[in-house]
Amino acid sequence: MHRTKVRVATDILDANETIARANRADFDRAGVRVLNLMGAPGAGKTRLLEAALMHGLGEVRAGVLEGDIAGSLDAERLSALHVPVTQLNTSPGFGGECHLDANMVRSALGAIELEAIDLLIIENVGNLVCPAEFRVGEHARAMVSSVAEGDEKPLKYPLMFRACELVLINKIDLLEHVDFSLERFLANLERINPDAEHMELSARTGEGVERLAGWLEALARAES
Amino acid sequence: MHRTKVRVATDILDANETIARANRADFDRAGVRVLNLMGAPGAGKTRLLEAALMHGLGEVRAGVLEGDIAGSLDAERLSALHVPVTQLNTSPGFGGECHLDANMVRSALGAIELEAIDLLIIENVGNLVCPAEFRVGEHARAMVSSVAEGDEKPLKYPLMFRACELVLINKIDLLEHVDFSLERFLANLERINPDAEHMELSARTGEGVERLAGWLEALARAES
Repeated sequence: MHRTKVRVATDILDANETIARANRADFDRAGVRVLNLMGAPGAGKTRLLEAALMHGLGEVRAGVLEGDIAGSLDAERLSALHVPVTQLNTSPGFGGECHLDANMVRSALGAIELEAIDLLIIENVGNLVCPAEFRVGEHARAMVSSVAEGDEKPLKYPLMFRACELVLINKIDLLEHVDFSLERFLANLERINPDAEHMELSARTGEGVERLAGWLEALARAES
Repeated sequence: MHRTKVRVATDILDANETIARANRADFDRAGVRVLNLMGAPGAGKTRLLEAALMHGLGEVRAGVLEGDIAGSLDAERLSALHVPVTQLNTSPGFGGECHLDANMVRSALGAIELEAIDLLIIENVGNLVCPAEFRVGEHARAMVSSVAEGDEKPLKYPLMFRACELVLINKIDLLEHVDFSLERFLANLERINPDAEHMELSARTGEGVERLAGWLEALARAES
């Protein structure tokens, strides 16, 4: 019984990988670099993105694919920034899918004018588990982890922290009000993913936003 | 393709329901009431539980089943309270299961001395999506939502907020430091689940913990 389950899961992952490669080929052909942005619910993904886009990415033309189980609250917020935003709701699926997969992203590609952008930021569903298991064709992966969530999170959600090249430590304006040791968090991150880059930010005060904007700009300009 | 996927998912849910009923029958036979405690990563599930158990539940003998993808950090913390704690790691599954299901709970039942407790609190994996889709045989469901996560969360994760009888609004000591309107959160909750009870708490300052302890005590004493 258990064996069968694992075999089925492997097949699903393989299908996802095939479609992810097709997405990636389309992105590369259009010269668009793609970031998969992940994090727990309420970590501040949308707000950091909003802050970075408001700061501006130099000459880079950005677009956003907004993954949500239901509603379009985040997409509406971001569209106020005059950036092309496409909403992708996962709720028609199995009780609301808990992640984006390559096929969902593929089904949204028709609605995105790839020629009009250099960088596509895909904001995944708020979840520290499932999104890490499904590549969608992205060139890079980043995650947001808020200091309000606690400093042991890399140990508790290792797959997610291992999957990302960049960890955005958000809400550092709350540091003095929560029991979070930056030193302990970084030691835990080092244990799980020693190669990960990290930044300390606050979407609320604007701290670190310039650095994130610079990172996004560099990603858009990098060779495939 | 899509049809097949949905059909398989329905079968899985049915198998889960069957096992959940078997769990429930075992709990009822032993006279144990069971709470499924859910919430996003870092919402403060373990810490609230710790605070309530430290406060004490009167004559009620509590036990904890601690669901985590990896590690036993939370179980270790709780066992310091001299309450029986059983650790259930989901990582042998498909990349680390993102939720507990009835069969996982069933597989842990042999390690829990049901005769020695009146109340079993099952702390689910930190996730606002998948755990809401799988009953495990519990009598009641509660979720923790931290004010650091934002006041729009009921609209973005409706299934979870709809599945719970009790919503614990945690970290209210942070209210003045975050952009969270309690009024707006409650209006959103009312829209999604008008029947849900709610409490405002802070595991850090202890505010509301007595009320939560009272609620747990009443749950343990209620008729099945």
